[in-house]
Amino acid sequence: MKLKSLVLSVSAVLLSGCGTMAKQQEYNADLIINNGQVLTVNADMQVIDDGVVVVKNDKIIAVGDEKLLEQYYAPKNIDANDGIVMPGMINAHNHLPMIAFRGLGEEGISNRLFAYFFPLEAQKLSRELIYNATKLGAIDLAQSGVTTYADMYYHMDEMAKATKEVGLRAVLGETVIKFPVVDAKQPYGGIQYAKPFIEEYQNDPLITPAYAPHAVYTVSKEKLQEINQLSEDYDVPVLIHVAEFPNEEARIKDPTKATSPVEYLEEIGVLDERMVIAHGIHLSQHDQALLKQADAGVVYNPMANVKGATGIAPAWDMFRADMRVGLGTDGPMSSNQVDLWRTLSYAANMQRLKHSDRTIMIPEQVIEMATIGGAKALHMEDEIGSLEVGKKADIIIVETQSANMMPSYDPYATLVYQANPSNVDTTIVNGKVVMEQRQMKTIQLDDIRQSVEAFESDIADFAKELSKKAIKSKSLMD
Amino acid sequence: MKLKSLVLSVSAVLLSGCGTMAKQQEYNADLIINNGQVLTVNADMQVIDDGVVVVKNDKIIAVGDEKLLEQYYAPKNIDANDGIVMPGMINAHNHLPMIAFRGLGEEGISNRLFAYFFPLEAQKLSRELIYNATKLGAIDLAQSGVTTYADMYYHMDEMAKATKEVGLRAVLGETVIKFPVVDAKQPYGGIQYAKPFIEEYQNDPLITPAYAPHAVYTVSKEKLQEINQLSEDYDVPVLIHVAEFPNEEARIKDPTKATSPVEYLEEIGVLDERMVIAHGIHLSQHDQALLKQADAGVVYNPMANVKGATGIAPAWDMFRADMRVGLGTDGPMSSNQVDLWRTLSYAANMQRLKHSDRTIMIPEQVIEMATIGGAKALHMEDEIGSLEVGKKADIIIVETQSANMMPSYDPYATLVYQANPSNVDTTIVNGKVVMEQRQMKTIQLDDIRQSVEAFESDIADFAKELSKKAIKSKSLMD
Repeated sequence: MKLKSLVLSVSAVLLSGCGTMAKQQEYNADLIINNGQVLTVNADMQVIDDGVVVVKNDKIIAVGDEKLLEQYYAPKNIDANDGIVMPGMINAHNHLPMIAFRGLGEEGISNRLFAYFFPLEAQKLSRELIYNATKLGAIDLAQSGVTTYADMYYHMDEMAKATKEVGLRAVLGETVIKFPVVDAKQPYGGIQYAKPFIEEYQNDPLITPAYAPHAVYTVSKEKLQEINQLSEDYDVPVLIHVAEFPNEEARIKDPTKATSPVEYLEEIGVLDERMVIAHGIHLSQHDQALLKQADAGVVYNPMANVKGATGIAPAWDMFRADMRVGLGTDGPMSSNQVDLWRTLSYAANMQRLKHSDRTIMIPEQVIEMATIGGAKALHMEDEIGSLEVGKKADIIIVETQSANMMPSYDPYATLVYQANPSNVDTTIVNGKVVMEQRQMKTIQLDDIRQSVEAFESDIADFAKELSKKAIKSKSLMD
Repeated sequence: MKLKSLVLSVSAVLLSGCGTMAKQQEYNADLIINNGQVLTVNADMQVIDDGVVVVKNDKIIAVGDEKLLEQYYAPKNIDANDGIVMPGMINAHNHLPMIAFRGLGEEGISNRLFAYFFPLEAQKLSRELIYNATKLGAIDLAQSGVTTYADMYYHMDEMAKATKEVGLRAVLGETVIKFPVVDAKQPYGGIQYAKPFIEEYQNDPLITPAYAPHAVYTVSKEKLQEINQLSEDYDVPVLIHVAEFPNEEARIKDPTKATSPVEYLEEIGVLDERMVIAHGIHLSQHDQALLKQADAGVVYNPMANVKGATGIAPAWDMFRADMRVGLGTDGPMSSNQVDLWRTLSYAANMQRLKHSDRTIMIPEQVIEMATIGGAKALHMEDEIGSLEVGKKADIIIVETQSANMMPSYDPYATLVYQANPSNVDTTIVNGKVVMEQRQMKTIQLDDIRQSVEAFESDIADFAKELSKKAIKSKSLMD
């Protein structure tokens, strides 16, 4: 295979005649990947052994077998070395800058959100920290094969800047919440903060700006409705935490007759196709039907949800009902990982446990959820999530030569149950090589090491003291 | 720190005078590890920042702070580069050669053990496959920081040979089962097969031979009693699957009044301190009390148990009751991984889910279970499982410089929730460096690549056909 590519490349050069200009005119593509097992994740879940993917500008222009090597010539060729070529993974729920705090508060704090998370953020978050932490997080994502992530946090303009420097795609939702936060001194200040951010990035090739009302119990009815109207005006997504905890509706300030947060969203008129709900652990059949009817996205965060003992979402039921179900890690203080590798196995295993059925959610379905599923949850399935002609060139190559990847009978099983982030060899986003042979091509980790060490030492002592206080605070939700 | 070590090494050379003999006499150790955060996992769970571990022959002769560098000199020094230095992990339940089959039969087969596992083994297992697959598995283990594993399989003499070539420590239990198997044409032939194996390895520095009756429903009462007597005569462990499935006692050929497999083992007089039970998912309070009273070991396999939808063992209850609880992966067809990294997070998260309590099984306790816990389960806690003077030098270094390891506030949380196998930098077993800076020092993966590719292609087609048949077979246990 390698020899064949070489021969073809040489022919291309020969055919192109003499001189640099003539040679460049011969190229009809920018990048060709060959010699890999291509998982297209198209509607037929087609797998192409010895497959080829051809990229021009930011798009995939051909996917097929080795015959494509006779039709396309590009200045850059990547030999997948018998590895797996697949769509970049989509982490559809995150709070990436919280990577600055990951590993903190792990000593057994029951009331962790209110007694630890929020005070830590109130004290330590800054515009600069969000920028620097996003860079670290985006490098971690790129190195582990996540090409798109969706995020709910603050100072989303800083996140956008850092994400673009690393070269990833992101849906960035500016948080709206009823108390003052790092980028808004007034309650609900995120609504205003988001406007210039949305306007700046509305047509960006990598960033999709969004609104992110925190939850039904931290954002009023009026503000949810205002955000819904703005999201329609701007045509942007709305990311929100829903049904992460039992009986969230009981904590709504102005309750309606709704018996669940999903019913509440529907009743107040904001549950629509722009909404992407994270968690959805406590969903009745009726809630699921409402979500499907609204064509809303749902993000299943299996690892974070069991680490935090919150439960297992009915993801298998929703997946089988052809709903828009993607996978997420939740923030780095919840699952401590930003990549999806462990989450893949949790995604399957937690459904098997819930249904006491080892035959459900087979590896192929997990990979579907991690790629096109995430794209559907974010309503981006026309752009990303599979290797098909016309889609954005968001592609990863996973090597299968390491001991942990051997043998590799079934590529889906190898990915879900054997692979770890270090097996990702190459990451391409929007046609641009972000990492190749594990070498970052955009920002180097060493470029940011100092800034990470600086925030780490600034946070460490404060966090230790806070932990002692928080561990005494017992209730989960107060 | 690096400079200091250099100065000290130079002093050692200067002090040692002239000539090779004089210099060597100056050394009072063989290997010194410095500049790491040492997790001793001793009774006080002492952590030593900028710690030092000193090794002579196969043993740890000193553990402490940097002052030790003034007392000890060795020809080999390893700079841990601010990484984590900890006891090698113990995978206390495995069927390592099944790595030859990992990734097979993942298409949703309910009756997987009887309709897929056993027919696959019957057709494809051989002495040679067991040897070659063990080598692959042992490399995978060494590269991921497992220094000791316990195994139940066939041709344990081949496994011992391969394991020693790679340089790991293992407890190898020869399987005894009521039907003919690869190394025994007669039912229960493993009893005889084990004798020369046990006699050969009884005093081996790395291999602990053992008996492995498969389960109460596949081994008769008389044979369990015979094995118990032999294990006493030889003073070797007895590894057995217990309470992996509900109501195993109903499938016993000559039932007693016992209402559980543990009660049965106790009634027939074989439940003693040499027994190590794997799984223990369905254990009553009384079962747990019997196991504690017998001082038996228990191995919790959280990832395999949820992947197979068998359930969650009461591991937290047994751990708190000071029982001998270790961690295992089960075989590579069950969890598909031989290392413990993912299992660490499952170990905590499944208990949190089971108890609906996010404050239990904090990362420190998980690491305890993965090291000294495993040693206790195997009754080897006087030899391995912690970094203490007099113990065998089974040590790993985990780097903390990669993006996925940053920041690292709490070493236990970093290990349980951030690390993956590729972060293991160095693996030392019985004082010998098996891997350093991720380079294997014993066998290279490339040395065995051809043999792996050979068995992979031999197995692939047969497995595909078998899968079609097996998928139609519906019952879990028949």
